[in-house]
Parts: sequence; structure tokens; C-alpha cells
Amino acid sequence: MPHPLYSPEIRDMLEQNDAAGLAALCEELHPATVAEAVADTLSADQIWHLLGSTDVRTQAAIFEYLPAELQIELVADPSRPQVAKLIEKMSHDDRVDLLKKLPRRVYESLLRLVDDVDRRDMKALFEYGENTVGGIMTTDYSWLPPTLTAAEAIDQLRAQAPDKETIYYIYVLDEAKKRADGGPAPRTLLGVISLRDLILAPRHALIRDLMEEEIVALKFTEDRATAADRLGRYDFIAVPVVDENGGMLGIVTHDDALDVVTQEATEDLQRQGGVSPIVGDYLQAGLRQVWQSRVVWLAVLFIAQMATVYAMAHYEGELAKVTVLATLIPLCLSVGGNAGSQASTLVTRALALDQVRVKDWFRVLRRELVVGVALAATLGVLGLARTYFTTPGDINNRPADLLKLTWVIAVSVTLICLWGTLLGAMLPIVIKKLGFDPALMSSPFIATLSDVSGIVIYFNVAWVFFFSGWV
Amino acid sequence: MPHPLYSPEIRDMLEQNDAAGLAALCEELHPATVAEAVADTLSADQIWHLLGSTDVRTQAAIFEYLPAELQIELVADPSRPQVAKLIEKMSHDDRVDLLKKLPRRVYESLLRLVDDVDRRDMKALFEYGENTVGGIMTTDYSWLPPTLTAAEAIDQLRAQAPDKETIYYIYVLDEAKKRADGGPAPRTLLGVISLRDLILAPRHALIRDLMEEEIVALKFTEDRATAADRLGRYDFIAVPVVDENGGMLGIVTHDDALDVVTQEATEDLQRQGGVSPIVGDYLQAGLRQVWQSRVVWLAVLFIAQMATVYAMAHYEGELAKVTVLATLIPLCLSVGGNAGSQASTLVTRALALDQVRVKDWFRVLRRELVVGVALAATLGVLGLARTYFTTPGDINNRPADLLKLTWVIAVSVTLICLWGTLLGAMLPIVIKKLGFDPALMSSPFIATLSDVSGIVIYFNVAWVFFFSGWV
Repeated sequence: MPHPLYSPEIRDMLEQNDAAGLAALCEELHPATVAEAVADTLSADQIWHLLGSTDVRTQAAIFEYLPAELQIELVADPSRPQVAKLIEKMSHDDRVDLLKKLPRRVYESLLRLVDDVDRRDMKALFEYGENTVGGIMTTDYSWLPPTLTAAEAIDQLRAQAPDKETIYYIYVLDEAKKRADGGPAPRTLLGVISLRDLILAPRHALIRDLMEEEIVALKFTEDRATAADRLGRYDFIAVPVVDENGGMLGIVTHDDALDVVTQEATEDLQRQGGVSPIVGDYLQAGLRQVWQSRVVWLAVLFIAQMATVYAMAHYEGELAKVTVLATLIPLCLSVGGNAGSQASTLVTRALALDQVRVKDWFRVLRRELVVGVALAATLGVLGLARTYFTTPGDINNRPADLLKLTWVIAVSVTLICLWGTLLGAMLPIVIKKLGFDPALMSSPFIATLSDVSGIVIYFNVAWVFFFSGWV
Repeated sequence: MPHPLYSPEIRDMLEQNDAAGLAALCEELHPATVAEAVADTLSADQIWHLLGSTDVRTQAAIFEYLPAELQIELVADPSRPQVAKLIEKMSHDDRVDLLKKLPRRVYESLLRLVDDVDRRDMKALFEYGENTVGGIMTTDYSWLPPTLTAAEAIDQLRAQAPDKETIYYIYVLDEAKKRADGGPAPRTLLGVISLRDLILAPRHALIRDLMEEEIVALKFTEDRATAADRLGRYDFIAVPVVDENGGMLGIVTHDDALDVVTQEATEDLQRQGGVSPIVGDYLQAGLRQVWQSRVVWLAVLFIAQMATVYAMAHYEGELAKVTVLATLIPLCLSVGGNAGSQASTLVTRALALDQVRVKDWFRVLRRELVVGVALAATLGVLGLARTYFTTPGDINNRPADLLKLTWVIAVSVTLICLWGTLLGAMLPIVIKKLGFDPALMSSPFIATLSDVSGIVIYFNVAWVFFFSGWV
């Protein structure tokens, strides 16, 4: 059931000033659908006109689904009376994400306009680190004291009528406490009860007896990837976030987990391609940022690759005698880079997903040795056939040299393929063992390392066949 | 709050035959925690002993969180009386995932042992394609007829006491229908109501009036990635799946979306690294499968790379005269591969996330042209400095040649870097336009293409400076 395109309909209603029609549309459609219909087609003024036709809660819901640049444009003038009200009704994590993108001047005017509670909440969330659990959590969640009965609890939830789906897990919190300095401390998290269990429970049962006390909770300082991992492992809709004393700070919800997994995958892909992660959409990211995220790695790889020049210079004498050797270098080297890139991609991803740990290094080595030998043998045979039958140039008039060259390629392709595979498989584990991110072992990086060793392998094999006199 | 390690405790209880203790533990802990505690430490017999201490619903919940190999081992003997009961209580998508992994003999015995309804359900789900919405959906969901009041609906849900969290979205279905051939047809999906709205609604309001009729639904034949995208865009906990007539078939839940996003990211990473996607965990995948997923690409790249040999052979005369040119080839070629790998990684991921569409090709080209020129200029200067000051060998005794060589490297590194960038940025878009997966433009593939053109650029630049007589 694909929903039709509402954009023309909305435009007509705006032109005819059909407030009732606009209101009905905003309330009936999913806010994401409304946001999609207006995002590319209406001006900021028109969008405010549309939003003005509905209640502020629906306004906030639609606003949350608009693209970030449009959100920034819409709140650019904080003196617009609707802005502060709308910000107050936004979900707490989404609005902090917005605030972080605003110019300081706009951000500060906004803070002055919202009410006290919201201001404190926004400031608190603003402080958490970008990649931490605190940075993705939200402070709107449902909670109850442990002393209510199930029936009282349902009545209380009805009265609070919490926004959206934060009602499905209800956190049971202790009495309010004071900090040593007199300020309010977060209430201690005692347990959690799902709305399902609350509905199914006997009416007079106490929350204290119904609640689940074995809680899976996150510290606000943990890595945001941990939150996604925990939500994924337990199939939770939300996980609570606590401070070092078990005080409730907020929750991370399933949709945040989805965003985190997508973002982390993007970063892993970029690292694997030799790019430092880029913040934001590809087409929106500043050109300067894109340049920076690439130039550092390109320069590092370029400088590392210079080792190949020294390695080659070492064999210039051999090259001068048998120039045909030079023409096969890119072919032979590429095998190591490709095989290494495959192995490092597989092992790096397996490390990221915890399918492989550092202590499994020997199992990985054994597997890659088997697979590497099989791959190397296949390519060696291909190299043998290819060199014997299709090498261009006048070497075809010297059958003995052609035979030697064939063996050089077959043997060195085999060795380089195996070596590249082992390098690509082992380096991510070594890097992780040393405490760095295994994704630093990007495909280009493995290719560079494998090029340097590939040259050494290639010329030593060539020396054996052409110059050693052994063959 | 990291939960302690329960494994020793469970082992003790098993040794002392403490059924009450085991039962309490199974019921109090999250099933995922119990599964984690037993997975690596207990034998299949011990696990059955543990499961036997609790009710079959909890058994199924714990079983679902065990690793796939262990699940297979546990049900390997279908004559064990607990097996069929446990399968009947498993969530419908998880058990089909398990069935798909079982040997045919075990699968068929199991089908004979479960009751009629479950057998039909298992067979139906078994048929859907691996990568489709049908392949990840589950058939356990809550539903109601449209004619009930809110109070009646809550009573009915209480009586059904549906498992787990499928209670939060309740689907409103029409009366049962017959197919033309007399068999039962799926009931038509009329609307959806969240448990939150049901709780907050007036007791006597009719479901028909409360339900949301603008439904975001998926067809069972759509790509599973679409399900993840839809769940992510609307922040839903679940999305309904329908047949071509709007008949309700099942739901896809938020935890499936998380799995899909993780799996798709893994596949994208593997393709980017030049590996055909591998099914299952790295350490579990069969060596033959791992070899196959790599050898095809390695061989294709190897054969494509042979073009470099022909390109080089073309310039053998120049090489024989200025052998030092050969020593710098790997350095110059690597620049194109690295720059191309960066660009293709960024563009491929942006295409996958819909941040870039084919129609944006010109914006991408313009951006990459700017960034590419900046990157190329940086590397050109590095190449210039590096060649002039650090080239090894006797060329240092011929200042005029050293100067020429310096210009060859500076100019060709600049051109190759820019060319690699544009190749890497444009090819994924071209491939997508042609209807293929842009991830086919893996880092090794771009590197290979860039190597071939890099050789042509390099030797033409060298010809200008060394042989043309123009300089």
C-alpha cells in the first residue's frame, strides 16, 4: 500500500487557505508522511502556515521528521512565536540533535524562550559526548513509584498520556534524593515493567512485586555502539541509561539503535575504503571536510608506498637485463593487494560483530592458510597459463626465457597471493590487540604493505630463475 | 550494571539436581542472559536438563537466544519428547530460521510431531524467499475485529495474553473470507491501533473509530531492506505484511530491522572489499564457501589486470632506455587505486543510503572534481619533493635527468590521482544506472581499472619529458 503523493493536495489547501483540510491531513497522516510531502516542495513560510493549522504536539511530530537543513531554516528566526512552543514539545533527543546544529546565537535565543524545565533538560543533554550513550538517549520516558497497584498505575499512565511509544516500558523509580550540595539527584532505578505485563497483571498487585528487577541498563558514558548491541541482543524496545550510582538519566530507544547501526556501518565502510569518517550526508558535507578526511590517508599511503621505489631500485640491475620483468610487476603486485583486501575486509567485519576475538587469532590463521593456499594455487595456474600463452613482445622468440618467465609469474603470483591473504587476515587482529581500531587496516593500506613485500618476493623469484644459475 | 557470570551457579545447581533453583533462575533472568551463560559451557544433555526445570514457554524463549549450531545440536534427535512442544512455542520467524538450517530428515520428523496449525504455519513461512519481507516476517501478532469497544478489546487481549511484545500494535482485521478454490484466504487488514491509544481511549469507543486507517504496510515479495528502511523512517515497532489483495500475512518487527541493517552492512562491506557476501559467521562459514566467494573476484581482477601487461609492453622501448622509470611505477599507480577506492566507497555508501541518486550524478562529478583537484595538487607536490630529494640510484649523478624524472612523477601523480577519483566516483553511479549493484565497483576493482589507465598516463607523461624533445 504505497501512500499517494500528498504534495499537490497540500499546496491546493494552502492556496485556498483551507485550515480545516490542513488540520485533518496533519492529524490523519503519519507525521513522517506529511514531512516527506512538504520537505522538497514548500517554502519555510508555507510550512509554518501548514503547521499552524494543527496542535503543537502534531507540529512537533511533523517537524521531527523534516530534514536537518530545513529544520535549521525553520527555527532560524526564534522570535517567531511558534518556535519555542514547538521545541518544548519535541522529543528530547531530537531537539538536542537540532540544537547542536544551530548557530550559537539562535541556540541561545531559543534557550531563553523555552520554559525552565525544558531549558535544564536541553542543557544537560547538550553536554554528553557525541558518540556516547548520553549523546543518543532521550529524557522522555514513563515512570512510576513502586508503591502503586497495577490499576492505579494504569490510571496514572492514562492521566500522563505520555507521548509516542515511550509508554511501553515503564521504569520504577525510588523517592527523590538530594545531592551532597543540596541539588536534586536522579532517582534510583529499581526495576522495569512492560505495559504488557501491567495490563495482564491482577488489578491489585503492587508494582513492586510485578516489576523486573534484573535490569539491563547502560551507563551514560558507554559507547553508543554498546547501546545498539544491547538493544539488538535482547530485542528490547528501549534500554534505561543510569549514572554511576544507578540514578535514572534517560532511555535509548530501538529507533536510535537502528540509526547507530547504520551510522557505524557507514563509518566502517569509509575506514575500509581509506577515508576518515565523514559527518553527515555525502552531498551536504563541506568540501573542506571531505578533502581533509581523504588527504591524510592518501598522503600516508603515498609516503608508505615510497618503500616500493627503494625496493625496486635494489633490483634495477636485473631490470636493465630483463626489461620484460618490469611489464609484469603491476599484475603480480595487484594479486597481493586484492587477496589482502578480501581477507582484511572479512576479518575486520567479523571483529566488529564480535564473531572473531583476538584470542581466536590462531583459528583465523589456520582458516586463511587453507583458503589462501587454495586461492594462491588457482591464481598461480592462471598466471602460468597466461604468461606462457599470451605474453606480448619478442620474448616469444626466446623459448627458454619464456619458460623461465612463466615460472617466475606462476611462483611469485602464488606466493604473493598467499602472503597478501595472511597479511590482510592477521594485521587487523594485531592492530586490535595493540588497542587500535582494526578498521585502520583499510583495503588501500593492506594493498600498500603487500606491494612492498610483493616486490621483494617477485624479484627474488626472478633472481632464482634468471640469474642464480640454479634453474 | 553488567550482569555477573551465572555459568558456575548453573553448573552447581545441575550437579546438585536443584530443580527449584534452576526454575527460579530461568524465570528471573532475561532468556538472553540464560542462553549466554549456558552456550559455551554446558553439554546438550545438560541444557535439556536445565530447560526441563521450567515451563515450555520459557524454554522456547531461552532456546531462541542460543547460537544456531547449538540449536541444531539440541533438536538433532526429534524423538526427544520436549522438542516438538518447544518448537510449537517458539516465535514463528525464529523457528523457520532454525528449520531452514536443519538436515531434511530432522526437519521432516519435526513437521510430523508438531500440531496441525503450527505445521501449516511453518510450511507457509518456509516458502518465502530468503531476502524478501516474507522471509523475515513472523506470523505471531495480535489482532481484533473492528466491532469491539476499547474495554472489550483490552479484555480480549488479556485473555489471549500474547507472547512478548507483539501486543503493542494490534491489527484490525475484517471477517474471514474464502478463496475461489474454497480454502481460507487471509483476512483483510483494515487498520491498526497501538496499545497506547487503546489504553488512553474512552472505554466505550469502538475499535473501528479508534484505529489508524492510513497504514504503512509491506508486500511479502518486497526486498527485506525495504522493511528495515520503512521501520527506520517511521520509527515503528512493527510493520504489517500483506498479500496482493491487502490480506494480512504477518509482521516484521524492530529487532528484525536491526538484524537486516547489520547483515546488509556486512554484505556491502564484503562487496566493497571484493568478496561475494558470505552466509553466516566468519568462523562458522564453510571453507569451500569462503574460497568460492573470493576466488571468482580474484580471478576476474587478475584477468582484468592483465591489460596492464599489454599497456606496459607497449612502452618496453622507453623502459629499456630509462630503467629508473620502472622503479616508480608501483608508487604512481597506487595513487589512482587509493584515491579511487576513497571516492567509490563514499559514493557507493551514499547511493545505498539514498543520500545520492543517479540523477545527482552531475553534483557528484562537480564535488569530486573540486576535491579531486585539491587532493591531486597535494599529492603532486609531495611527489615532486619526494622524487627530487630522495630518488635512489645513479640518476643523482645526472641532474638534468633527475629534474625530468621529478616532473614526470609530479605531473603523472597529479593526473592519476584526479583520474582515479573521478573513476571511483562515477563508476558506481553508471553501474546503478545500468541496473546493477553499485557495490560491484569494489575497491580492488577500481584499483585495477585505475592501474591500466595509470600506466597509459604515466608513460605518456614520461614520453613528453624524456623522448618528445619538447622539454
